[in-house]
Amino acid sequence: MICCVCLNAAVDITYHVDSLVPGTSHRVREVRARAGGKSVNVARVLKQLGSSPIVTGFAGGRTGSAITEELVSFGVPHRMASTAAASRRTVTIVAESTTVLNERGGPVTRAEWTRLRDDFGQVCRDFECVVLSGSLPTGLPATAYARLTEIAHDHGVPVLLDAEGEPLHEALQSRPELVKPNNVEVADLLGRPVESAADAAEAGRLLMQRGAGSAVISRGADGLVAVWRDGALSARLAEPISGNPTGAGDALAAVLARHLNENSWPDTLREAAAVSAAAVARPVAGEFAADLAERLRPLVQIEEL
Amino acid sequence: MICCVCLNAAVDITYHVDSLVPGTSHRVREVRARAGGKSVNVARVLKQLGSSPIVTGFAGGRTGSAITEELVSFGVPHRMASTAAASRRTVTIVAESTTVLNERGGPVTRAEWTRLRDDFGQVCRDFECVVLSGSLPTGLPATAYARLTEIAHDHGVPVLLDAEGEPLHEALQSRPELVKPNNVEVADLLGRPVESAADAAEAGRLLMQRGAGSAVISRGADGLVAVWRDGALSARLAEPISGNPTGAGDALAAVLARHLNENSWPDTLREAAAVSAAAVARPVAGEFAADLAERLRPLVQIEEL
Repeated sequence: MICCVCLNAAVDITYHVDSLVPGTSHRVREVRARAGGKSVNVARVLKQLGSSPIVTGFAGGRTGSAITEELVSFGVPHRMASTAAASRRTVTIVAESTTVLNERGGPVTRAEWTRLRDDFGQVCRDFECVVLSGSLPTGLPATAYARLTEIAHDHGVPVLLDAEGEPLHEALQSRPELVKPNNVEVADLLGRPVESAADAAEAGRLLMQRGAGSAVISRGADGLVAVWRDGALSARLAEPISGNPTGAGDALAAVLARHLNENSWPDTLREAAAVSAAAVARPVAGEFAADLAERLRPLVQIEEL
Repeated sequence: MICCVCLNAAVDITYHVDSLVPGTSHRVREVRARAGGKSVNVARVLKQLGSSPIVTGFAGGRTGSAITEELVSFGVPHRMASTAAASRRTVTIVAESTTVLNERGGPVTRAEWTRLRDDFGQVCRDFECVVLSGSLPTGLPATAYARLTEIAHDHGVPVLLDAEGEPLHEALQSRPELVKPNNVEVADLLGRPVESAADAAEAGRLLMQRGAGSAVISRGADGLVAVWRDGALSARLAEPISGNPTGAGDALAAVLARHLNENSWPDTLREAAAVSAAAVARPVAGEFAADLAERLRPLVQIEEL
């Protein structure tokens, strides 16, 4: 069972409008609301891939109930700890371009955070791996992912971390087995540009120096770069898929989590590049076009770096 | 008891962001969520003015429960009919300017609409007046306000109508006692510009020719114009109040509803202009600054037209 930790679950609301003009009123043509937060999307892709995910994290208020009910309807079991604060919303406005408004989420109280950690420690031994993914709500310390990584390690469970900024910086010191930032996030962390595949490989090595066991850097339409103790590979499609890039990183994380206990980087990257590109073809995060992934697998170009 | 009919109640979400830039992601600095829909705001102002409002209309889903619970917490009784569809949301983004996204609401089924009309007819005789205010959800006919006006009249209850477009056009034929569009709405309906106070008075007379018993046209910072069978008055403040104009029209409707059965236009307009200006001073709709209204009352300039 793969545990997806979602500390800042959200109701993701998507609005379609003809044109977004600041300072005016808009009639929304189409509304969609669904459970989100990066780890919820990872769990849904894992389910679609045939794995057995479980979601843990925080859920509160009416928005929290909507999230847990939707997990149940997806067939994804959960162990959400309840918070007094309602779970956050995100609003995505689709017009000529895509505009996103992210509520911060929280506050999570100290007692709620303690309860989640205790519960996580009690069930941790049942997990084949743990995915720590997404932002932190207010009230949680920047060391939250570092603490959960240590608890997982206490039970011999490997960790895939998808975070940025301070939570990523802190968690590296707890030595997660794999980190999966994108090129922008890793450039921000390291304070250096990450443009070419060689830049990404070098950035991955720096992440390993800071504590990561291995690193996969996603580069949008330019594909992926993986770096581990014995090598580095890039994986890309000659022709990128166009569509909705939101959730491609979550699809990538799902594939990496499934293969975290293996040692076959070329196969893993081929699958990761195909599934994350096939997620771009779907209008919502947490899904991928299975037939497209099937067609893309043989087209992924793997190169040593 | 004044009945405020809210056919398209909403959870009004307000986001504060530093700057709204289409095509980018934003961290929301501050979030507020509250029950809305024009008639809910009218009911809250009526409560603050010391009247006894009751809200009827539709509520569904988790958003509907949030709305009815909030009415209870305001001390406003309600008789909301439940719908299978969840009540809508509106999102207001406050940055350099104010941007609004309105979900349409609904669909309301034919059976739900029939049930609401039946219930309305049964309780109608207890009301001193009925306020019909706001947009219609999908699924309701454009004649919805016309039908409710007829039911109110069957029980001898006068109607204040605050609508626009097709629902206003249709309802005029059922002869509501008072209509309260703003200058933009009435210009759209009549297909002629409504700029000066004289334009507004003329527009009011045209609304009466189409069926309205009387009309109050709100003109933003330029005040109000009232037209009735025996006369026409304008009411305005020499110095308009700056602030949040959302909800000023609802405060105006609340005052007009309180005085609908009287025949003292100058006093009513003085109160209406003061309270609606004092609503502009409050950051959210459905409230007014009572001390400011007190100070503004003697400053309202009433002129015959």
